[in-house]
Order: sequence, then C-alpha cells, then structure tokens
Amino acid sequence: MGINISNFLTSQSKNLKMNEFQDLDHIDGISISTVSANLYQNDRDDLVMFYFREGANFASVYTQSKIISENIKWNLSQKTKKIYSLIVNTRNANSFTGEQGYKSMEKIAEEISQQLTEKQKEDEDRPEKIKSKNILFGCTGTIGEKFPETKIIGKISDLMKNIKYTQNKYVWIKAALGIMTTDTRPKLAMEECMIGNTKVKIYGIAKGSGMIQPNMATTLGYIFTDANIPNDILKKLLKKNISNTFNAISCDGDTSTNDMISIFATSKASHGKIKSISDNKVKEFDEALNRVLLNLAKRVVADGEGASKFVTVSVRNCKSEEDAKKIGFSVANSPLVKTAIAGQDPNWGRIIMAIGKAEASINLENLSIKFGNINIIYKGKLHNQYSEAEASSYMKNSNIDIDINISNGTKNFKVYTMDLTKKYIEINADYRS
Amino acid sequence: MGINISNFLTSQSKNLKMNEFQDLDHIDGISISTVSANLYQNDRDDLVMFYFREGANFASVYTQSKIISENIKWNLSQKTKKIYSLIVNTRNANSFTGEQGYKSMEKIAEEISQQLTEKQKEDEDRPEKIKSKNILFGCTGTIGEKFPETKIIGKISDLMKNIKYTQNKYVWIKAALGIMTTDTRPKLAMEECMIGNTKVKIYGIAKGSGMIQPNMATTLGYIFTDANIPNDILKKLLKKNISNTFNAISCDGDTSTNDMISIFATSKASHGKIKSISDNKVKEFDEALNRVLLNLAKRVVADGEGASKFVTVSVRNCKSEEDAKKIGFSVANSPLVKTAIAGQDPNWGRIIMAIGKAEASINLENLSIKFGNINIIYKGKLHNQYSEAEASSYMKNSNIDIDINISNGTKNFKVYTMDLTKKYIEINADYRS
Repeated sequence: MGINISNFLTSQSKNLKMNEFQDLDHIDGISISTVSANLYQNDRDDLVMFYFREGANFASVYTQSKIISENIKWNLSQKTKKIYSLIVNTRNANSFTGEQGYKSMEKIAEEISQQLTEKQKEDEDRPEKIKSKNILFGCTGTIGEKFPETKIIGKISDLMKNIKYTQNKYVWIKAALGIMTTDTRPKLAMEECMIGNTKVKIYGIAKGSGMIQPNMATTLGYIFTDANIPNDILKKLLKKNISNTFNAISCDGDTSTNDMISIFATSKASHGKIKSISDNKVKEFDEALNRVLLNLAKRVVADGEGASKFVTVSVRNCKSEEDAKKIGFSVANSPLVKTAIAGQDPNWGRIIMAIGKAEASINLENLSIKFGNINIIYKGKLHNQYSEAEASSYMKNSNIDIDINISNGTKNFKVYTMDLTKKYIEINADYRS
Repeated sequence: MGINISNFLTSQSKNLKMNEFQDLDHIDGISISTVSANLYQNDRDDLVMFYFREGANFASVYTQSKIISENIKWNLSQKTKKIYSLIVNTRNANSFTGEQGYKSMEKIAEEISQQLTEKQKEDEDRPEKIKSKNILFGCTGTIGEKFPETKIIGKISDLMKNIKYTQNKYVWIKAALGIMTTDTRPKLAMEECMIGNTKVKIYGIAKGSGMIQPNMATTLGYIFTDANIPNDILKKLLKKNISNTFNAISCDGDTSTNDMISIFATSKASHGKIKSISDNKVKEFDEALNRVLLNLAKRVVADGEGASKFVTVSVRNCKSEEDAKKIGFSVANSPLVKTAIAGQDPNWGRIIMAIGKAEASINLENLSIKFGNINIIYKGKLHNQYSEAEASSYMKNSNIDIDINISNGTKNFKVYTMDLTKKYIEINADYRS
C-alpha cells in the first residue's frame, strides 16, 4: 500500500502515458503545494494544498450518504463567496471522528488562513485577510480513526514553503498522486474551450478506487478553471454534468461518507459576464466541463480496485431515464455479471437475470442485447446467428460494451463499471493491514 | 463442478454431519425417485421426482424477477387443487429458452402424468387419472441453454422404476443431493409438531449457492408435510413465514429467474379440519414451519458460494421494519463489508458506510454497534472500552454477529449472509467451463 512518488514518476512513467498529460500547464490564479505529512508509513506526499491567491468562485456536490464525514460537515457550514484554499489529505477520512474530527478542521483552517494571510502580505501587492471560512477540506482514507491533526498542523509551514506559483504537468501530476489512496494511477483530465472570444482552461484531478457507486463514491474530484463564472451558475453546471458522469459510474455499489466533487473558478479569463446557465456563451464550457468530468469518471472506473476490464453498459429506449438507470446499475452492480466478465465468459444469462431483477418496465419480446457489435439477443430470442465462439472471443477485450435495447420508449442511460476479480478481494480484505 | 453422489456419501460424510439428519424417515403419501439424466457430465443424480400418490395440497412462492423461467410460467399456469408430482432438474434453468422451453414442460408433464397414471393402476386400489396440470417443475442451472427435453423424457421410465415408496434419511439426502448445483452440501431440515392431538411432520430440502438475495434467489426450497391443510391456508402460512427466513438471506444481491419455494401437504395426518390461519390448532405448525424454513435458509447462506463465515446482521429499534430491512441488506450486500469479514478485519467504518448509504431514517447520536458481545459504537461514538485487539480476535470466529441498534423506534429485522472471498470469484468466473 502507498505510493512513493519519486519511484512512481520514474518506474511507472510508462503506465502513466505521460504524453496524454503533456499539455497541462498553468491556470492563472492557482498555486499548488504538496508535502508528506507522514500519514502513510512511507514518505509519499499525502497532503495537497490548492491556493487561490485572489480567491475563487466555487461549487460542490457531496455524498448522498446519511452519515457524512466531519470535513464535509465543515464544508457545508462555511458561508462564503470565495474560497482561498482547498486542503486534501489521504489515509484518514475524518469520518465518524466526532467532535475531535470537526475541531481539527477548525484548528487547521485557522492555522492555514493565518499563514496564507502572511504569505499574501509577503507576495502580493494587495494582501487580503483570509479567514477560516475561506478554506475547504477533502479527506479520504479509513473511517473512524482519530484525525491526525497534529501531524497536519506540523506540516503547514512546509506546505507554504512548497507552493508552486506556476504549474506544469509535473505539478498537476504530483497533486493527483498526492490525493490517491489505493488508486494505482493518478487521474487527470483537461479541456480548453472558448467563452465568447476568450480561451479558457478546465483542468481536473480525481481519486477513486473503492466504494465507487451511483451518487458518487469516495471519489474526490476537483475541477479548476480560469473562467469567470458566478457561484450559482457554477453550481448548476456542476449538478447538470455530474448526473451522466460521476453519478453514472459504479465499481462495487458502495458509497462513501466523504464524496466530494468541486469546481473552482479563478475568474482570470477576461470574457464578459455570464448571466445564466442558458447563456449561449457558456455552451462550449458546459460541454467541455462534461468531457472533463466524464474523462475523470472513466479513469476512476478503469482504475477501480482489482479491475481488469472496463465495462460500458448502455441501456437504450426505455420508458423513463429512471428505468434505464435501474437496469444499467442492476447489470453493472451484479457480482455474477462482473465475475463472468472477469472470467471472459459471455454468460448473457446473467445479464438477463440482472435486467429481470431491476424492477423496471420491460417486455421480454422487445429486448435485444449486443456485446460490442455482436448480436446476442434479438427481440427476446437468442439471435439466429449467435456464435458462442465469437462472443467468447469478444470477451477477451479489455473494453467490454454491453448494449441493452429495451425498445419500449425513448430514454437512455450509460453506466460505466469494471469487472470483479480476486484482486478486489485481496485489496479489500487487507486494506487496513 | 458436479458432485458424484456415491463419493459424496462416503468421503464427505463427516462434513454432512449425518447424525443431524438421522431422524428423517417416512412421510405418509410421499414417494421419491432420483436418476442421473446425464445433464451433468459425470453420473451424479440430477433429476428428482416427488410423487404424491393421492395428490397433495400445495402452495408456492416464486421469484420476483420481471424475467421468469419457463418452468415457473408453467407452474403459474396450472389451475388445479392437487399436485401429484414435483419434478426438479439441475444444470439447466429452462430460462430464456422461449417456446421450446415451455413446450418441453408440456411434453414432459404429459409423459410423466401418463406413466404415473399407469403406475397408479398397478400399485393402488383406487387409481386416479393424473393430468399434466397436476405436475409442477423446479429447474436450476445455466440460463439460456436449450432445455434437455429428450434426455429427461428418456429417463422417465427409470424414474418410475426407482420410486421409493418408503423414505429413510438416505432417500431424503439423495433427493437433497440431486437438486444441488454448485452447492457443496445437501440442505435438509425437519420438525415435528402437534396439530390438536395429532403429531405431524414437516421436512424440507433446499438448494442455493449463487444468486441468493432478498426475495428469494435461485433457491429451490421444498417443504413436505403430512398435515391436512387446505391450499389457501398453506399459501398464507408460506408467505407469512418466508419474509423472515428465505427473504431475509443474501449471498450476493443477485436474484434468479427460477426461485421457487413450495409446500406440499399430503393430508394423511388425521387431525381435524383447519379453518383459518388464526385457528389455534395451527399455531404450533406455523412456528415449526418457520423453524424449518429458517434452518434451510441459514444452510443456504452458510453454503453460499465461497463462504468462509456465516454472518447475522441484526438491525434493531428502527422506525419501520422497512428501514431495518434496508439497513440490514445494505450491510449484508456491501462488498466492502463482506471482504473485510473475509479478511477477519473488524473494519466497523465500512459498516457505518453501509448504514449511511441505506436511505433509512437514522440519527447518528443514537447509533450503537456490537460484534457479538463486544461494544464497538455506543450512542454515536467509539465505545470507551473499545479494543481493536479484542475485536480482531472476535473476527476469527466462523459465525459473526453484527448487532446494529438504531434506537429511534421499535422495529427489528435480521439478515443472514456470508463473507465475500476469492473463492466466490473462482466459482463464478468459471461456472460454465
């Protein structure tokens, strides 16, 4: 467990496909700093600070669990128009840590806001007083362990020293590595788009791995942009684009107490004012944001614990989107379907089973199923050219597309998931040891 | 895959704990016959016939899947007051087999009813004409493979030859073995109770293994009694007692297209007439039936695919039974909880997570959790005497009791499940090969 970043950046750089991140560079108004606070036993970075020198507009969506972590409680309580810093730690979820966990947030926020205010005085022409309420927290790791407040406070001065005022791909990758838990790869995505005549950037990092499920999972996802968009429109854009991205993925059907996706906008881009979500100027941004979120969400699934295959379950032509979702998640969460995929077995009977138990409106006579381009079921019957050999051969691919055509309506939904392997059991039976 | 019965009865007889079944003997009015119809590659028995010579009152509950197998469709279509035979085959679910699958049921029922009618003429004083509609079918195995009609029809005469008119424990065990798929142990249970001044017997056999889930699973469960209870009261008794037995178990959250629990009553016991489910005379029977169903349901879980531990999730003092069920199944179906148990890790944080995502009414400050007698969480906080060492030691047991006290109401529900091991993946990634 745990990743040594220096090793990672050398020995695993092939896996990283560094080239795909080569265009990541600086976003105006954002600074990044990472340190090892010794939350893990080895010396990997496990504490990451994003510092928005002039403040950032922001919006967040959080876990739908009835039990939420102390940092999410903190985030929900702060009433502020601008965020100056996002602090993310790994190894400890600060969940079910009670008063101590919440008070840790207070103390750390107080210390960081003071030190950042000092920093501002040193660095900037027009220093601003940064307050505790301007700080947000992301926490991920084990639930119910005492929050390592002292270790983190002890590292705040190092965080200040390590601030990179200008980002390149390595700084972004270090940040993405620093928020990982059992992830095996850092997750980054980027898009550029136009708002009016001005080019803006949308970068994102995420972590995932276990507890990935509808309505978000211990996904932490952070989106950064230089666009100038007010909080209320950011919120609408984020909610709108979460539904078919981070809320369309499932690794194991479990949900974390810590889920959090946020967007931060530094407003450094000099396009004109955006008045509403239906403003034509924001259309390209809306689409680009969806691509960033979907890209990250797919990376989270592809790196799901023990995953050997990436699976897309496309459910089409249902009476309602709700039905399409039910069927999609029933298939994507079925251990029997997921183990069959791990075993490269075109066991379509288990897909039928999962469709049947989904409590959605279906008519068997209209049902068609394809694996990739291979017809399996056509209008409720095994396709007359079905070949088990051909289907078996398809299952050897690392990307499996399951197309389910319900043919009783017009609504669609795509769910992304992975297979269920022995490796998943290994990782999760040994997580704490 | 597949069990050679003769081997099983010798080499595995220790596992069988034969003594626990030693009291199984004859139930008046029931005959049993088993053969190998070569549905499996080896020569294990895979076709079982129960023959009720004078007919039996009966009631069934079936899968709640929207897609049901052809034999269940057959069973639901027959309008009759008496059943003369129940035929159970393994290896082929007769699900998604369409017209061919249904017509096979017709042909087999026709052939069996004719041969049984002949048998009646030979054996009995007062032969009765047995019709197709007097036959029920249980099928279990792979979905979507052509139903082996010819193989089964070819073995009907052997079934007739093998009829045992008098049962002992070996006959019952052979029947329980004959309906197994990936089960590793036959599942039997028995009770005796009084109806008025008359002693009656309630015997049951079941198979389970994969796709075990709320609302039944590819459980086949068959209960036999000599009690004299009319169909409508049998139905009420069965439905009432399924809810906290077979509908309270979960292995992997999947549901089969073939689930079926039936009760057959030969009416040979000479107690008086039972007029309603609230008739005082039926109270003991009601309770004994619950014990038989619970006993079988627990055996199904204990033998769940890859299970190394039997887990009882007891959810207490909820606002509604619905809430207690939601929480119980959320915990019991959580892959992260199940893998932690497999790893003998007292990772109560994952239980908190599963409670949180259950969409039930909870107040964290009232929540208490125990593992066995060990206090883990008390009123929303880690218990002040919590010892990780003690909890770890408890997790080494093969029976794990998780007690969740929600403390905001009076309703309870118990869910039974097992852990999630690498063995589960092995079994299910290789099921068809």
